[in-house]
Amino acid sequence: MNIFSEIPKDLTEEIFEDIIKTKNLKIERIISYGQTSPKSGWYESQENEWVIVLKGEAILSFENSDDVRLNAGDYINIPALKKHKVSWTLPDTETIWLAIHY
Amino acid sequence: MNIFSEIPKDLTEEIFEDIIKTKNLKIERIISYGQTSPKSGWYESQENEWVIVLKGEAILSFENSDDVRLNAGDYINIPALKKHKVSWTLPDTETIWLAIHY
Repeated sequence: MNIFSEIPKDLTEEIFEDIIKTKNLKIERIISYGQTSPKSGWYESQENEWVIVLKGEAILSFENSDDVRLNAGDYINIPALKKHKVSWTLPDTETIWLAIHY
Repeated sequence: MNIFSEIPKDLTEEIFEDIIKTKNLKIERIISYGQTSPKSGWYESQENEWVIVLKGEAILSFENSDDVRLNAGDYINIPALKKHKVSWTLPDTETIWLAIHY
């Protein structure tokens, strides 16, 4: 299995795919294609999330802190309940994320 | 933080770096530089390990099953207690792994 392979053809919606899922852990592949979160509202998870961009580029925004731009290889830990959103991803190509929810 | 950055200069020994460590989870960067496991003996972990090669190439060997060659982006899940070893990594350059122990 390769994280860069088997990209679905229809990327009109952001894609979330479980790779590993247990009681305490989820390893997930996320594929964005220029999508961003809705302008209003935040993601606010009950779990911690460690995320790395493996291809493409993205900007994460946080409530009460600066935006973070992520290029390939950049990673960040998002603690549970920290309000965040994806403000931008590279248009015209896929951005591939690996997310570890724990 | 970038998974491809801050590579230590001395790679005579394989390098293991914790990125996240909790009671139930460890996210680790491993940097190999042509090293392999000892010819005799196996790794046999009490925990499951999901591993992805992000740069370089490697061959994993398993007791009682075929070798698996991993190129950049290839991932594999190694269940707890499954005997395995790194038989080969690309010489003359670093192989960068991300390992999730869970």
